[in-house]
Amino acid sequence: MNATAYARLDARFRRIAILGEAEGVLHWDWSTVMPSGAAEARGDQLAELKAVCHGLITAPEMADLFAEAETEELAPDDSANLAEMRRRWRHQTAVSESLVTALSKASTACETVWRAARPHGDFKAVLPSLTTLVELVREAAATKAAALGTSLYDALLDEYEPGGSSAEIDVVFGDLESFLPGFLDEALHAQARRPAPLVPNGPFPIPVQKALAQRFMEVLGFDFDHGRLDESLHPFCGGGPEDVRITTRYDESDFLSGLMGVLHETGHALYERGLPRAWRRRPAGDARGMSLHESQSLLMEMQVCRSRAFLSFAAPIMAEAFGHDGSAWNAENLYRLHTRIAPGFIRVDADEVTYPAHVILRYRLEKAIIEGAMEPADLPVAWAEGMERLLGIVPPTDREGCLQDIHWYDGAWGYFPTYTLGAISAAQIYRAALDSLPDLPDAVARGDFKPLLAWLRENVHGRGSLDSTRAILEKATGRGLDLETFKAHLRARYLE
Amino acid sequence: MNATAYARLDARFRRIAILGEAEGVLHWDWSTVMPSGAAEARGDQLAELKAVCHGLITAPEMADLFAEAETEELAPDDSANLAEMRRRWRHQTAVSESLVTALSKASTACETVWRAARPHGDFKAVLPSLTTLVELVREAAATKAAALGTSLYDALLDEYEPGGSSAEIDVVFGDLESFLPGFLDEALHAQARRPAPLVPNGPFPIPVQKALAQRFMEVLGFDFDHGRLDESLHPFCGGGPEDVRITTRYDESDFLSGLMGVLHETGHALYERGLPRAWRRRPAGDARGMSLHESQSLLMEMQVCRSRAFLSFAAPIMAEAFGHDGSAWNAENLYRLHTRIAPGFIRVDADEVTYPAHVILRYRLEKAIIEGAMEPADLPVAWAEGMERLLGIVPPTDREGCLQDIHWYDGAWGYFPTYTLGAISAAQIYRAALDSLPDLPDAVARGDFKPLLAWLRENVHGRGSLDSTRAILEKATGRGLDLETFKAHLRARYLE
Repeated sequence: MNATAYARLDARFRRIAILGEAEGVLHWDWSTVMPSGAAEARGDQLAELKAVCHGLITAPEMADLFAEAETEELAPDDSANLAEMRRRWRHQTAVSESLVTALSKASTACETVWRAARPHGDFKAVLPSLTTLVELVREAAATKAAALGTSLYDALLDEYEPGGSSAEIDVVFGDLESFLPGFLDEALHAQARRPAPLVPNGPFPIPVQKALAQRFMEVLGFDFDHGRLDESLHPFCGGGPEDVRITTRYDESDFLSGLMGVLHETGHALYERGLPRAWRRRPAGDARGMSLHESQSLLMEMQVCRSRAFLSFAAPIMAEAFGHDGSAWNAENLYRLHTRIAPGFIRVDADEVTYPAHVILRYRLEKAIIEGAMEPADLPVAWAEGMERLLGIVPPTDREGCLQDIHWYDGAWGYFPTYTLGAISAAQIYRAALDSLPDLPDAVARGDFKPLLAWLRENVHGRGSLDSTRAILEKATGRGLDLETFKAHLRARYLE
Repeated sequence: MNATAYARLDARFRRIAILGEAEGVLHWDWSTVMPSGAAEARGDQLAELKAVCHGLITAPEMADLFAEAETEELAPDDSANLAEMRRRWRHQTAVSESLVTALSKASTACETVWRAARPHGDFKAVLPSLTTLVELVREAAATKAAALGTSLYDALLDEYEPGGSSAEIDVVFGDLESFLPGFLDEALHAQARRPAPLVPNGPFPIPVQKALAQRFMEVLGFDFDHGRLDESLHPFCGGGPEDVRITTRYDESDFLSGLMGVLHETGHALYERGLPRAWRRRPAGDARGMSLHESQSLLMEMQVCRSRAFLSFAAPIMAEAFGHDGSAWNAENLYRLHTRIAPGFIRVDADEVTYPAHVILRYRLEKAIIEGAMEPADLPVAWAEGMERLLGIVPPTDREGCLQDIHWYDGAWGYFPTYTLGAISAAQIYRAALDSLPDLPDAVARGDFKPLLAWLRENVHGRGSLDSTRAILEKATGRGLDLETFKAHLRARYLE
């Protein structure tokens, strides 16, 4: 049997994908159920898996296989798959195995320290680990930038957002920075003219919150034969298409925050589960990138589940679950509550209008650090200045400031802008879905998510990485990334 | 830097150990929390990890490294480590990567079918998967027997019980087979002369059972910073020394079965956690073998926790936990209840006296199947005949017969005899501990397990695989495997 070079690459990447799934399970375990004393051993396990994958992808024969595969006759989708293989190969061959291992271990070590330091707002405690990690991140950025022919920041961004560029982000974020402050003022004034929404009184027992979350997950289309819901410090969606695991955190005094977290992560999960079956464990079958991933979570959470349509369906179910009634539980009040805006310190609790400010701050800071224009030690001061400039507030401690997010401490540098790119894409994609399915709000109001899910499967999920992010967005919505649709959504919702 | 051949082997086996830990976590996950639809993908993940480890251990340079390391000057413990590396290398080089992968996948596939078939006693449903698996097991036995120069059965036994031999087992089991029927009669007569123990009335809420189990685990010395307690269909101890995870199953109407399962697995966990730190992730630092492992679980469960000393400590705690009182909860009654004997169908529920019969049956059957003298299809009939001959009872369905245990269906052939070798060793080791610590029963009666644990750490756990099973047993107890101590224990406990 003489397999083609492409087939041999395909088999190799299949092994890498399977080991990646194993890594996903170990990471889920680390974040949810692992006993604390196992952190160091787990760090070694994750680093070793990364080293094995690095070895498989950078093996000496791979360059020849790529060269040969380029000469083979391939169907267009296979060509897309080959291109995606090559992209990954270029990323991995740019870094040595020892750097991959060192980065992995520095990330798990830093995250471990961060977990202990965060509750006390103790930035100094985590600074040494963070400094070590940042040095390695910079080293990876430098070697990748040289290999890929990009800027330092774009070399890292490309891991999360293939084809993304900070030049494009700067334009979009610049536009947002000039639009948002004025809009926020207008929206706050509009909000002030209405009576404040009533806040349902807790406590809300956690088992009830969990059962309610599971019920809504099922409504949205989550398949519990292929996934789980658990708890973790930082909510996430992990695992893979056959085993999608989401997490949230519950607060007994406020069920909305945990529930919206679940609906957000369910959006991620539905994307993973809807990736093209024929391309499982092949690079072209993976999720396209983090902005499209975030578009799917924000479409579910922000566009759909904070809409009047969904809340008219959900309000009586929520009230019944907690055995409450009264005007705090009517759909219009819950809608007002779910779309309240207020500048605050915590990104994950932020409303749609102020959220981009959080992301812009992080983007500017991480870019400066990656480029060497700023040191990790400068973060607390720079953070406070940035928050004051962008939202007019200053966090009382680093806990509400530069310690709040896991990303930098677990090694995800170059990731943050995808949140806001995702929010913009979400507005666009939902607008396109509404245009092509005029009955969608009625279906959502009946708790029927099938039409929406089918549309997303066809137009987004099922495309995997067979197209670029831009091409998927263009085919689904008729245009590239379009801030105007996002602005229109904000105006319609917050200035009514 | 010119590392010695031994140091290079050491580094290679460290990587294999780390990947083995990853496999352990994936296996724990599979048995406890994995959604059912992920079974096939998980099977691929486990098989891929096995293939990677097989590749690392059978790499072409390894033979030369072993040859060179044999010529290097090594401390005795390093020589033991090298010998253990070589033993593993011989096992792995005897089988091809494709056989390793096929065996792993056939095991996970067969276990998946078994999980569904067992509740219905549907042996026919699992027979095709079992037949496929057995063919692969036989193939592995044949190639390993040729490479190791042993019989087919001993080639598989050696994976679980290094240095074990069926010739020795046949002698011990023959002796037991002539001793037990008469002894069982005597013991049943002695039991019949006493009033039957009272059975505490449930229901026993599962959260209370779990809290009680955790409390006793702590008393025994379990470290929750480095381990967990969960639930699974078949109780087990998994993970590794830094992350020891045990499981049990709870029954609302009977708390003793779940609790004794926990105390049993805690014995395994304490062994893992007590392995020599300096030899972590090195073959000489691993648990010696399954008979010694089982000796540690049975020492805790059977020798210690079913003793009057422990139950005098535990009885009031149990009664208080469930909010009960009355004569069913006095220590002497609970002692009688914990040492009741009665022939039954289910091995894991069997008492100490009838347990060996269950093991002997399985040993004879698996040996016949491995040697090709019997086919998997013959199991139900042969099982019924064996049970009738050994214990005078016939299971009503295969659920209480050849479907009850996970082992054959998850690919563990050649494992069963270690249960009874472990029971015999446990009696010997506890006798030796009592001889050297005369106050031990008093300490246990106070809930103080520190003296016992310290003794076990020094004499068993801390030896890892630095000695053979026989040498560890001889140093700890003054003799090799000794059935007489086990018989003396049974006589003292059941004929009083």
